[in-house]
Amino acid sequence: MFFPRKLVVTLLGTCPWHRCHRRHAAEIARLSVREALASLEESRKDIKIQGWVRSVRSQKDVLFLHVNDGSSLESLQIVSEPNLKGSALSFGSSVEVVGTLVKSPHKKQSVELKASDIRVLGACDSYEFPFKLKERHPPDYARQYPHLRCRTNTFSSLLRVRSEATAAIHRFFQSNGYVHIHTPIITSNDCEGAGELFQVEATNWDSAAGDKSGFFDVPAYLTVSGQLHLEVMSGGFTRVFTFGPTFRAENSQSRRHLAEFYMVEAEVSFTESLEDIMQVMEDLFKSTTTALLSRCPEEMDFFNRYVSPGQKDRLEQLLKQRFMIMSYTEAIDVLQNSRDAFRYKPQWGCDLQTEHEKYLVKHCGNIPLFVTNYPYDLKPFYTRDNEDGPQHTVAAVDLLVPGIGELFGGSLREERLDILQSRLDGLGLNETYQWYLEIRKFGSVPHGGFGMGFERYLQCILGIDNIKDVIPFPRFPHSCLL
Amino acid sequence: MFFPRKLVVTLLGTCPWHRCHRRHAAEIARLSVREALASLEESRKDIKIQGWVRSVRSQKDVLFLHVNDGSSLESLQIVSEPNLKGSALSFGSSVEVVGTLVKSPHKKQSVELKASDIRVLGACDSYEFPFKLKERHPPDYARQYPHLRCRTNTFSSLLRVRSEATAAIHRFFQSNGYVHIHTPIITSNDCEGAGELFQVEATNWDSAAGDKSGFFDVPAYLTVSGQLHLEVMSGGFTRVFTFGPTFRAENSQSRRHLAEFYMVEAEVSFTESLEDIMQVMEDLFKSTTTALLSRCPEEMDFFNRYVSPGQKDRLEQLLKQRFMIMSYTEAIDVLQNSRDAFRYKPQWGCDLQTEHEKYLVKHCGNIPLFVTNYPYDLKPFYTRDNEDGPQHTVAAVDLLVPGIGELFGGSLREERLDILQSRLDGLGLNETYQWYLEIRKFGSVPHGGFGMGFERYLQCILGIDNIKDVIPFPRFPHSCLL
Repeated sequence: MFFPRKLVVTLLGTCPWHRCHRRHAAEIARLSVREALASLEESRKDIKIQGWVRSVRSQKDVLFLHVNDGSSLESLQIVSEPNLKGSALSFGSSVEVVGTLVKSPHKKQSVELKASDIRVLGACDSYEFPFKLKERHPPDYARQYPHLRCRTNTFSSLLRVRSEATAAIHRFFQSNGYVHIHTPIITSNDCEGAGELFQVEATNWDSAAGDKSGFFDVPAYLTVSGQLHLEVMSGGFTRVFTFGPTFRAENSQSRRHLAEFYMVEAEVSFTESLEDIMQVMEDLFKSTTTALLSRCPEEMDFFNRYVSPGQKDRLEQLLKQRFMIMSYTEAIDVLQNSRDAFRYKPQWGCDLQTEHEKYLVKHCGNIPLFVTNYPYDLKPFYTRDNEDGPQHTVAAVDLLVPGIGELFGGSLREERLDILQSRLDGLGLNETYQWYLEIRKFGSVPHGGFGMGFERYLQCILGIDNIKDVIPFPRFPHSCLL
Repeated sequence: MFFPRKLVVTLLGTCPWHRCHRRHAAEIARLSVREALASLEESRKDIKIQGWVRSVRSQKDVLFLHVNDGSSLESLQIVSEPNLKGSALSFGSSVEVVGTLVKSPHKKQSVELKASDIRVLGACDSYEFPFKLKERHPPDYARQYPHLRCRTNTFSSLLRVRSEATAAIHRFFQSNGYVHIHTPIITSNDCEGAGELFQVEATNWDSAAGDKSGFFDVPAYLTVSGQLHLEVMSGGFTRVFTFGPTFRAENSQSRRHLAEFYMVEAEVSFTESLEDIMQVMEDLFKSTTTALLSRCPEEMDFFNRYVSPGQKDRLEQLLKQRFMIMSYTEAIDVLQNSRDAFRYKPQWGCDLQTEHEKYLVKHCGNIPLFVTNYPYDLKPFYTRDNEDGPQHTVAAVDLLVPGIGELFGGSLREERLDILQSRLDGLGLNETYQWYLEIRKFGSVPHGGFGMGFERYLQCILGIDNIKDVIPFPRFPHSCLL
């Protein structure tokens, strides 16, 4: 809650320039719609509500309004005499309503506001406003209006859930002793070696400084992962996490990819096996999802009803189960023994495709599935060598979830200086990663970590088909609106 | 706490590929150093501690070690027989120690670990390791080793405080009903119009797609502020905030500037005056600082002792005071009547310089000072016109704090369509900001907001002179290490 400030300024000595800006305490209590709806008092005078009109229904001797301020999915019903209706009062306009909060005689809501005054703050031409009263707008229509779509039920619910998920993730790590690290956005590294990078340069560098080597003296890119920088920090704090934007310049228009998306990444030192990492992944997924079910019940019901029927039941079932585990080698066996016709033939040594991942999860009863120990050649240089044979694997793990496929990717990191050095030598990267080798030189520890795609997590939890509909301002090829 | 996972995998039907990976419950309890130090039990057997050696002192019949794992500033003292000392046990090496936690006979610590087993996990050559036992390393020395400086007391304390401040800021907004928004990092806007931008382009776009218009079809930049995007969202949620990276391609090597830094920004709808915004700024500052004093007492003491003597007292004093308020016009009067010789002559219509800001704060008894109502021509197009005269001002406010100068900048935003339109017309920006005008067209509301430089906040709280020493991986002209 915040109320207009009662400023009491201490006058300092004899200085004549300080003036006392004092305001009278507001006698009218300003409530958010959420607070008003949660009000348990039978009747409460002098309440002020502010928000946007979601419906206007004018009858002969009574006017019904619904006002929403984004604090909850539900709107507050306003009841007034029809003469309070200004001409500018329409769907989408912003209003300030003063009145008495009373118990509602209708079943649909617990309370309503009997208005004594309605003031239109900002008009809204319903013909020009792209969203219409009582219409359901398909997501690709809403996406064309990134500056207005937060006024729809679907997108405002999504963003409230996103905000709660963000808070829940921070809480999870904080309460488990992790130190939060802001890993850099601009970096001279390419963590994944994928090559699909955005390069960064100052717009006015050449001309301003007569300097051809660029702002940073070296080519600089937008980060594709905070992992290597988190590894630096796990070497001092034992447990660290980051939650920030990552970037891929992939020319993909799929429902699963964005050029700018958010990753939750954690790194843990003194690991004993891959299971230490899997345990954190499972705990994070379950703790965040449990928080959402309890803190956003209206929004979860809304998505369950209108977007992905049955989703809530499926989530609640899933939270009761221990996640499954299968090695990559076992997974290939399962796929090769399946009767399904895959577009890509499953074969040891090849990446699992989304169709394979979805099949495996289904095969396991739609319970999230850890696939472990991938072929050596499939994973980046930092993955810990299992030193096994004849099928040479590394200690990597992906978590596959229903409807999405890969949600988390993690691994133990190669902490043994000699093994890492010879791998980097082979790749000709020894010099570039001198600093990375030094972490292994000065008090190296066994460690591992993972990354979770935050937007994919939201898709998975809410059953939302297109990744562009779970982020406030999606960026993808040919599109950078606003 | 997490312990090695006891995996119980449900075997599904007749599928032969699922194996039960079961591990015996660890009988030895793994504690973080923080947990061990907080242990209240008189004696506790079978404790395992893992961390990095901070000191080794070998006597004839006893060996003293100090082990730190980054969970606290304080290290845990290990006491053992000298024969447990391996040859690789040295300053900087990583160890695992098993033993009994007992009450310490020494005054310096409450508990110590009587070791029954010490295992060196990773050796550390003390000669090559850039940080030395018992030496204090100046910040500019430590800065050369961004991959190792988290092993020093100063920098690890800083990052623990930074992590707690991050959490406290999220909590403040969440408990006050703000929705968290991830405003975009890549944007086609230049919010401040400053021109010191980083441009972003896919590295392989031209060749891969034969497409000359770039990845996004339009020039794309790294954000300098999330404000305009937050304004979009305040038009649906009433209260929103963001906390993310922002960028300036400024060719400055000052102690106050970074190319990549973090901003906390909030936007509030239905404001009645600038004071609504000032109240949130003051509450955020005080609530975060109070949280740090109570949650990081050791670290705050450390900085108070070794970095900025007297800082803690100053903070505690400051938290008891209401912040001061002065208009820009009054501030210019104060400056013009001062006997100090300024490098830049204070004059109505000119920006306040850091020397002016510091003078004003000092003049107000070192209490944070809000300066309000700046000249119309000094502030960006979105600032609300006060429509006053003859000195034409806008409803902008900066918060100046001791030692730093400007920490927050905020304003009411111009919500009146006609005034905003004519201002944008004058700037030739009407078309570019069509979407921004539309927010005013469809249910506009009076609103305002602010941004706080997170690194400057940390400098202010801890008394740290150089901004490069309060961020994990500083980026500035000619430097993008790691």
